[in-house]
Amino acid sequence: MADLTADLMVRTDLRGVDSHGVGMLPTYLRWHRAGYIHPAAEPKIVRDEGTTAVVDGQQAFGHYVATCGMELAIAKARAHGVGFVTCHNSNHYGAAANYSLMALAHDMIGISMTNGPWPAVVPTFGRQAMISTNPISLAAPAGREYPFVLDMATSTVAIGKLSVAARWAKPIPPGWALDPTGQPTTDASVAYHTRLLTPLGGNREQGGHKGYGLAVMVDILCGVLAGASWAAQTRRDTHPPDRADVGHFFGAIDVQRFRPLDLFKADVDALLRSLKDSPLAEGGGRIYVAGEPEWECETMRRREGIPLAPGLVDQLRTVAGETGLPFTLAGRR
Amino acid sequence: MADLTADLMVRTDLRGVDSHGVGMLPTYLRWHRAGYIHPAAEPKIVRDEGTTAVVDGQQAFGHYVATCGMELAIAKARAHGVGFVTCHNSNHYGAAANYSLMALAHDMIGISMTNGPWPAVVPTFGRQAMISTNPISLAAPAGREYPFVLDMATSTVAIGKLSVAARWAKPIPPGWALDPTGQPTTDASVAYHTRLLTPLGGNREQGGHKGYGLAVMVDILCGVLAGASWAAQTRRDTHPPDRADVGHFFGAIDVQRFRPLDLFKADVDALLRSLKDSPLAEGGGRIYVAGEPEWECETMRRREGIPLAPGLVDQLRTVAGETGLPFTLAGRR
Repeated sequence: MADLTADLMVRTDLRGVDSHGVGMLPTYLRWHRAGYIHPAAEPKIVRDEGTTAVVDGQQAFGHYVATCGMELAIAKARAHGVGFVTCHNSNHYGAAANYSLMALAHDMIGISMTNGPWPAVVPTFGRQAMISTNPISLAAPAGREYPFVLDMATSTVAIGKLSVAARWAKPIPPGWALDPTGQPTTDASVAYHTRLLTPLGGNREQGGHKGYGLAVMVDILCGVLAGASWAAQTRRDTHPPDRADVGHFFGAIDVQRFRPLDLFKADVDALLRSLKDSPLAEGGGRIYVAGEPEWECETMRRREGIPLAPGLVDQLRTVAGETGLPFTLAGRR
Repeated sequence: MADLTADLMVRTDLRGVDSHGVGMLPTYLRWHRAGYIHPAAEPKIVRDEGTTAVVDGQQAFGHYVATCGMELAIAKARAHGVGFVTCHNSNHYGAAANYSLMALAHDMIGISMTNGPWPAVVPTFGRQAMISTNPISLAAPAGREYPFVLDMATSTVAIGKLSVAARWAKPIPPGWALDPTGQPTTDASVAYHTRLLTPLGGNREQGGHKGYGLAVMVDILCGVLAGASWAAQTRRDTHPPDRADVGHFFGAIDVQRFRPLDLFKADVDALLRSLKDSPLAEGGGRIYVAGEPEWECETMRRREGIPLAPGLVDQLRTVAGETGLPFTLAGRR
């Protein structure tokens, strides 16, 4: 479990998703000490019926629970065409794409979602955070192009963007976050301290009710269907304080049940290529498709290494010291 | 097929989604005359394997093809826990929620998506429409609350909002649409004529790349996986001009494979209620959950009738005249 979790954290940094990689280690140590994460626990399959299964994560590392869940979904899709697995009693699982990506080696479409018990996103017309940033990931195999890998929080931006803007005392665009009265704020410091993110779209006029709807959809699949906790429940204080009880939802769809694999891959290539070759906006630099920046980052970082901020290196040294582990991180300073 | 299609169009108006109800009839007549819609055609199941199936719509009405597809998905979920069905060679299917809603009577979660061959949405950093408004719908049963019904285009707004603003010569908010150079425009007339919608979120800074990713995801599932056309293909002129070749993707998930139904419904109720009861923004009126405005509208319109604009009544009278059918629409003027 330690190897797998470490590998996924490093893979996440390789892909450039620095917010969800080794930078999470100090937080995971804190959650372990709070009793949320049981590193030696083994997830249990509590229900298993052909195309579906339910996994009790037993408070193991989310990365490990999720890998077990997605492996099960893939095995089911191999046998039955599609496989869907929910997990409860889990923890933060890092980047959602880690698990949708697993389907690609099997020429399947992979789906990965997670909720979280930490309220961060405000319902449209509300002023209290009631939903976590509930990400959605879908990965689809391609031929010559990089595979399509969508991995998006259902909030407009991540908390990380607010902390960076607050640190530099820069204004944020209206629509990212709200002040305590529920009005849009451009003051990064207010936004960072109130932590009231808008759902994708921002306000109602800009379609924020759609991002809000997507976030609730994720809570229905990962919280309610999986039998895990959800952010609004935490608000009601009915959430057990001794565990995070994060829920996940995984799906695998065997492409060949619907179309010959070579035709599917050729058409994914054609679709992605058409989008990337379409005319640029004036002043624009480049049209991407989902996952492309991460594939390019991974290629570069496998060659050149992963840059770690000095502050993070210090934090990791502290984690090693506090846990009595040797600090072996070497590299250019 | 005529009854079913008419019923779904009226149901759509009952739910207040006037853009996708009987108001589409003149367009459907035009598409029939162009050879896209074959009203007497019968969809064919071209592949059928336990949990999955592929339907060739045979250019029948999209509503009919989609109903066949979703019925098949539900039957598969009844037998196997989950069922997924793609359709190609179909037509515009009206409101996406018409089909996800079908799952509710079976205590299942319903999923419905469609693409379209009509480019309307611009990739992030682009200036040409390459994707249709590709909606996503998910419906989940509740207990005492209205069921959760998300039905959202993956664009920021619908074309309809631009035409209304253009008609009244009102400015539109920046972020809804682009001018021909790919820059945001607030001129409704420019926006309506160039028809370059932004993906949900608007520009890159506001998360528009996420809406763009969701729209491409729908094209991968409904266009590529289903073996139908897609908007970027239309752009390349490889799309057969004699049919729309719309693709759909349907899923049904039997709740009871994951959790006891009463617990699931009670938790959906608790989740939705928590969101609706959370504190209001200052100046805000009410917090909704997805589907609630439509359920309330349906209740009201079943009692009071569906208001039809005089212009639409005239259009419907023309359709009746041109097709040699009696015009029997009665009601308060």
